Amino acid sequence: MKLKIALLPGDGIGPEVAAQAVACLQAVEEAFGHQFEFTKAPVGAIAIDQTGNPLPDDTLELCKQSDAVLFGAIGDPKYDNDPESKVRPEQGLLRLRKELGLFSNIRPVKVFPTLIDKSPLRKERIENTDFVIYRELTGGIYFGEKFLSEDGNTASDLCIYSEEEISRIAHLAFKAAKGRRKKLTLVDKANVLESSRLWRRVVTRIGESYPDVELHYLFVDNAAMQMILNPSQFDVILTENMFGDILSDEGSVIGGSIGLLPSASVGESSAMFEPIHGSYPQATGKNIANPIASILSAAMLLDHFGLDEEAAAVVRSVNKALKKGMVTPDLDPKSKHGTDDVGQFIAGHISDSD
Amino acid sequence: MKLKIALLPGDGIGPEVAAQAVACLQAVEEAFGHQFEFTKAPVGAIAIDQTGNPLPDDTLELCKQSDAVLFGAIGDPKYDNDPESKVRPEQGLLRLRKELGLFSNIRPVKVFPTLIDKSPLRKERIENTDFVIYRELTGGIYFGEKFLSEDGNTASDLCIYSEEEISRIAHLAFKAAKGRRKKLTLVDKANVLESSRLWRRVVTRIGESYPDVELHYLFVDNAAMQMILNPSQFDVILTENMFGDILSDEGSVIGGSIGLLPSASVGESSAMFEPIHGSYPQATGKNIANPIASILSAAMLLDHFGLDEEAAAVVRSVNKALKKGMVTPDLDPKSKHGTDDVGQFIAGHISDSD
Ligand SMILES: [Mg+2]
Ligand SMILES: [Mg+2]
Repeated sequence: MKLKIALLPGDGIGPEVAAQAVACLQAVEEAFGHQFEFTKAPVGAIAIDQTGNPLPDDTLELCKQSDAVLFGAIGDPKYDNDPESKVRPEQGLLRLRKELGLFSNIRPVKVFPTLIDKSPLRKERIENTDFVIYRELTGGIYFGEKFLSEDGNTASDLCIYSEEEISRIAHLAFKAAKGRRKKLTLVDKANVLESSRLWRRVVTRIGESYPDVELHYLFVDNAAMQMILNPSQFDVILTENMFGDILSDEGSVIGGSIGLLPSASVGESSAMFEPIHGSYPQATGKNIANPIASILSAAMLLDHFGLDEEAAAVVRSVNKALKKGMVTPDLDPKSKHGTDDVGQFIAGHISDSD
Repeated sequence: MKLKIALLPGDGIGPEVAAQAVACLQAVEEAFGHQFEFTKAPVGAIAIDQTGNPLPDDTLELCKQSDAVLFGAIGDPKYDNDPESKVRPEQGLLRLRKELGLFSNIRPVKVFPTLIDKSPLRKERIENTDFVIYRELTGGIYFGEKFLSEDGNTASDLCIYSEEEISRIAHLAFKAAKGRRKKLTLVDKANVLESSRLWRRVVTRIGESYPDVELHYLFVDNAAMQMILNPSQFDVILTENMFGDILSDEGSVIGGSIGLLPSASVGESSAMFEPIHGSYPQATGKNIANPIASILSAAMLLDHFGLDEEAAAVVRSVNKALKKGMVTPDLDPKSKHGTDDVGQFIAGHISDSD
């Protein structure tokens, strides 16, 4: 397969971890006979420094022309801590998501057996946890009409959804469930919210076209409990923007390390892959950042294009690194391995047959 | 002190646990020389059976005339599972909250050292956890305008708050923090929501009148993480209705048993106290329901009227029961102690001097 990949390393540790993801994709290219063409472009603080714009036109154009975007991280304290600064690195990411129409945020939550003791939850609660959250990313209350009364005493936000917005992400989630354990849980608050009742009607109707997928409903307050009490019950969770924001962040701590968590943001014709961790400026250039979240984001990229076997090879190699203790100091304070050691180990074992 | 208390035992295990809370209040009456006058009235399924109305006029009138309402539990499968039934037990509770203007829901989350192993979280994460959530209960998106387009393709809900709605609960939360560890955390999503920015402005301004209380701000998605990662950092959490719904349910699982968790709902001139657990119909009449949540709700009632010493005596006696293993089978499957045994033990040790 030929793929044009826009490489947006961004700020802080972004370039270091993205470089290791690229190394792994190149190893896949070689082992499986694909052709991946990487083109690098600036985004975030580094783009502001160079052009004054966190998302330069050339970068956006490149992303639109590419099959996928591989994203590092974004953010720099010199802008974040300056209340005067009108342009912020994060705006680059928000605008990119919007311009590419990335309406579906996909966040896997998986507990790695070798790291189970790092979780704040007891081992027996989280064993076999392996679910993925499909969060609607461009609608709902974050984007609905805002209002502030003239006297400043009353404020409101509108949570609004259309059938089309719900339908397009629901199909993605059902398809994902079909390829997994065939269970989809719609999280809403349909006992109180009109918009949730629309979600329930639309998703229920779409569910009829996926008869092999079991559809469950859960109220968001109960979901917040169940995610702690019994996270292994979930397979695919589908939910609206704000509920997804809260639940995917809650879910991100189950595994015990944010340095392992990848994500994808998918639209009709574009897809972007990035670790959920930030730019971690304190670690920049120290060769201590954990590249695994970025490498697993690359695995999600492969998966997105139907390269299941290739994605599985990357995940297998990551597991090998974890098992052998080939990890950065965030996972093992005694480890002397750097970002590049871990990345090279994983890239180097992708073609292993075991 | 003289107090008129409306006793609304409700359905299922409600009457059994409420009876033990009354026994404890009567022990306080005697030990500390107070006069509590209890008047019982029906609410919920039992009220529907008797009058067709889940909140009969006489019950509402009694609550309005009383200093406080002690509530058991509500709900019966014969109504809950009947989609045809127009009147539901829960409507009684919702209407009661509204009629009494109970705008502030108060949910303590406390880890009992003797039960720490029941938590889904690791011991070292939850030691010393002791916080209380102040959730706004009558405003926000659950009560804002709802909309469904004529073609049924678009639906919306409005999250709206006024300064007055925020101000009245903020004062309660600051006062609570003053009497505790003097830390208040406002949970919002002020980086995105206009209503959250109003919360932040109002609460920040009110905070100036409570200079000894440290005010912190936390986004709701981060709060959902922090509650698992490090729950002992919190003292008083203040938040709007829906965030409070999600976070208080998430918080309710930290302690490991829902049978221990009390709550209060407070307004300008009324206050209601109830366990957070439901009517648990399967356990009704079996003398196995845990009365501690109801008894701790009675302790919150005492606290509400400034009877700190009395409230502390109840809590001390509950701790004694937990320590001695005088608990119902939900906490210790081998226990032979019934609801009444546990209640009588706690009531019987309220006047202990140690
Ligand atoms: Mg978030
Ligand atoms: Mg709830």
